[in-house]
Amino acid sequence: MSELFEKLTPHLKRSYAFQAALNIITWDNNTLAPREAIDNTAKAIEVLAGEAYGTIINDQVKGLLASLGTPGEQERLNTNEKAIVKNLSKTFRKLEKIPADEFQAYRALKARAYTVWEQAKSNNDYGSYAPVLGEIIAYQKRFCGYQQGEGQSLYDVCLDDYEEGFTVEILDDFFGKLRTALGPLVQKIREKQELVSDAFLSQTYPVETQKELCRFLAEYIGFDFNRGVMAQSEHPFTMEIHNRDVRITNHFYENRLDFAIFSVIHEGGHALYEQGIDDAITMTPIGGGTSMGMHESQSRFYENNLGRSRAFWKPIYHKVQEYFPAQLGRVSLEEFYRAVNKAEPSLIRTEADELTYPFHVMIRYEIEKLIFQGEASVEELPALWNKKYQEYLGVTPDSDTNGILQDMHWSGGDFGYFPSYALGSAIGAQIFHHIKGVMPVEEYLKAGNLAPVREYLREHIHKYGGAKNTQELLTDMTGEGFHPEYYIAYLTEKYTELYQL
Amino acid sequence: MSELFEKLTPHLKRSYAFQAALNIITWDNNTLAPREAIDNTAKAIEVLAGEAYGTIINDQVKGLLASLGTPGEQERLNTNEKAIVKNLSKTFRKLEKIPADEFQAYRALKARAYTVWEQAKSNNDYGSYAPVLGEIIAYQKRFCGYQQGEGQSLYDVCLDDYEEGFTVEILDDFFGKLRTALGPLVQKIREKQELVSDAFLSQTYPVETQKELCRFLAEYIGFDFNRGVMAQSEHPFTMEIHNRDVRITNHFYENRLDFAIFSVIHEGGHALYEQGIDDAITMTPIGGGTSMGMHESQSRFYENNLGRSRAFWKPIYHKVQEYFPAQLGRVSLEEFYRAVNKAEPSLIRTEADELTYPFHVMIRYEIEKLIFQGEASVEELPALWNKKYQEYLGVTPDSDTNGILQDMHWSGGDFGYFPSYALGSAIGAQIFHHIKGVMPVEEYLKAGNLAPVREYLREHIHKYGGAKNTQELLTDMTGEGFHPEYYIAYLTEKYTELYQL
Repeated sequence: MSELFEKLTPHLKRSYAFQAALNIITWDNNTLAPREAIDNTAKAIEVLAGEAYGTIINDQVKGLLASLGTPGEQERLNTNEKAIVKNLSKTFRKLEKIPADEFQAYRALKARAYTVWEQAKSNNDYGSYAPVLGEIIAYQKRFCGYQQGEGQSLYDVCLDDYEEGFTVEILDDFFGKLRTALGPLVQKIREKQELVSDAFLSQTYPVETQKELCRFLAEYIGFDFNRGVMAQSEHPFTMEIHNRDVRITNHFYENRLDFAIFSVIHEGGHALYEQGIDDAITMTPIGGGTSMGMHESQSRFYENNLGRSRAFWKPIYHKVQEYFPAQLGRVSLEEFYRAVNKAEPSLIRTEADELTYPFHVMIRYEIEKLIFQGEASVEELPALWNKKYQEYLGVTPDSDTNGILQDMHWSGGDFGYFPSYALGSAIGAQIFHHIKGVMPVEEYLKAGNLAPVREYLREHIHKYGGAKNTQELLTDMTGEGFHPEYYIAYLTEKYTELYQL
Repeated sequence: MSELFEKLTPHLKRSYAFQAALNIITWDNNTLAPREAIDNTAKAIEVLAGEAYGTIINDQVKGLLASLGTPGEQERLNTNEKAIVKNLSKTFRKLEKIPADEFQAYRALKARAYTVWEQAKSNNDYGSYAPVLGEIIAYQKRFCGYQQGEGQSLYDVCLDDYEEGFTVEILDDFFGKLRTALGPLVQKIREKQELVSDAFLSQTYPVETQKELCRFLAEYIGFDFNRGVMAQSEHPFTMEIHNRDVRITNHFYENRLDFAIFSVIHEGGHALYEQGIDDAITMTPIGGGTSMGMHESQSRFYENNLGRSRAFWKPIYHKVQEYFPAQLGRVSLEEFYRAVNKAEPSLIRTEADELTYPFHVMIRYEIEKLIFQGEASVEELPALWNKKYQEYLGVTPDSDTNGILQDMHWSGGDFGYFPSYALGSAIGAQIFHHIKGVMPVEEYLKAGNLAPVREYLREHIHKYGGAKNTQELLTDMTGEGFHPEYYIAYLTEKYTELYQL
């Protein structure tokens, strides 16, 4: 074993300990902590976050990483160690370019911006949010400037944080193809809304029974309750502490069934990824999913490619009916399948269906690109937003609350994040296409046997954590890198059939 | 403001942040974390605990405390700052005498000992536990030796950790008086068991309804759910993050009602203490209850002095009946009152009634004293235990599981802790006596008005946190220091009436 790597190990352990603490505290804040707790607790979080930063950004680690990067030392490292050094070096390289005082000030600004955004959203008052959003953007641009490489645009720097190697060039091609192929589909479906009804999903569905059903579904797809827990929160999310402690949340609406069902399958997909990480790398810098896009591919694969298929529900729809006999006793599997796939342009990204979803992302991508190219001022954003919604989805927000204020991401400086949602869907569809080629997925689903697919994903994606990036995982598994065509073909086929286009 | 104290502040904030993180993680582990999580999570906990130690035990803090302790600097400090310096100096003084490597090794040993104890208890196998218990005792004696002051016995050093100023001399007097006064009472009651029946408490009480009742009771005594939460765990406990985040747990037995009821009132008493700490001192070294004994006085005051009185239940017993009409509809308030006060010698401390409870503690106190005087070897302890149970309570454990292995405390090195349980009851009774002198407690209880008592406790005890110690709080509030006589009088009067002695 490399002596130098051994010297790095205590730093990794310290870094992990802080991350684990911050994750558990975040989980706690979002699921359980009392209403008045946060102002006090935030002070502890700030200290811990500062310490966490220092566990990696210090001269000792800098020296170790420099030495470990030399060819002679690289030879002494095994695959995982190499990946850890590579991953950490990248983090280090990006972080060390930001002056510590600016980093701290930005973190404080983001905390404040979140509160301002929350208020602005609740009051439909973009004007009160615009100044702080402007500050956030200025910081983010400055930081990207510090980190900018040769020939890299500012927005490319943002994108790289969420999906290594995915540039504006690749995403322009991706979204361009989506627009061309799916735009007309969305148009046609608008005229055939009468073909699919989902009214029965809006009956009264008692929350306690929904919870039982969701627990059943989590177990059904393979979520391991010995290594994970479920709880409730305002918005569903997945949080991993390590590979033996992966948590998912859900949110329940008494008058809507499908939200909770597909949330648990979606978060369950994220969780299977994290529960499938190899023991050898959990609690290291490569101990989580490799990227936002790849993570989202797993959640969307389960939610959409599997979860919104006829085959998925065939063996278990009768169970759903048993949970809700009065509501679903006379609803056929086919009616259920159609309802949970109803497509209709709408205003809110998180409530969008599988087909219109990527357009919500595309709008945000295009706006972010303009922001970072200096071609859109903060003041212009609401109008720009509304114009694009009209252009791509044929709907215009009735308020900024249901428009530009709907997402929290920008208040946290998360520019470049949105594209990974659409990339995730596209990668999920590509993986779905591939897996159908190596095993009879539909037969397995119909037989209620989800293990082969899960095992395959674990073997080819999950276990590697961050040891391979998205393109490497795709190439090693399927023989080719990312291609959006599978996604387009999948959606086209599915919706052409469903809406008789 | 003192410049030096300002320099101490960032150290306090760091120290608090680690404590908050460790508390939240501990809470999480005990209430929620999945079964397989702990081995991994423990690694993060170990790192954080090590860092927490270093936040206080370092040369900078040492220098600051030394300077802040000089008369000139003391003059510049306000009351709270003085108390913080005093408290921290004591912690520092005790900790710095222990070599860091021994401290680390002891922590690891305790972690192992806990597991060994758990196994031994579950297998009724004291022999497998004895060696590690011996190691724990040896460490604890060595550490007490390091910390021993002039004329202080080793066991006094232990006691000082939990209740400042309470020595073997004071406790010998305390337990001696208890034995003399209450021993005969216990004897007499054994012969009058037929006078009180609690059989109806062992009907089936659905857990969900118990939970609702317990939530009602927590609110009734004044637990603020905006500043606290309730959850379930194997054993009930209270955990404070700060004064706006105080958590209590409970455990429910379907076939026993009073356990959960009195647990929530007990933990609620602890929680009121923590929720009542002043904003100015929360999240500082004096931001929690001042001692184990004073904390236990608050929980026992609510559980026993208030909670097991007729007046407490008068305005709400009908609610209890409404929660459980089939089980309690025909049980009168007087029958309920008598049942929840049934006294009977038994084997398990945590299940003991108010009257026999101090004897369980006395037995542990006497054994701990012998251990630290070098008069009892690890091998002799089970026999010693059983002999004392026979002597004081007239019962002999049927197994070590129900005898010497029942408590986890010793596996964690917590010697000197047990006495604070009995002290808490005695202090609670003393406070009860005092408060009855300043306000019509019984009338308030009968009117369902618990606010005056709570406000009085907040004003005279809670808000001070650790700024005053037990004796100071008692003296400032009641005009006299600790006196066990009130406790003896309270129990004698109550049980003489109940059992017609």
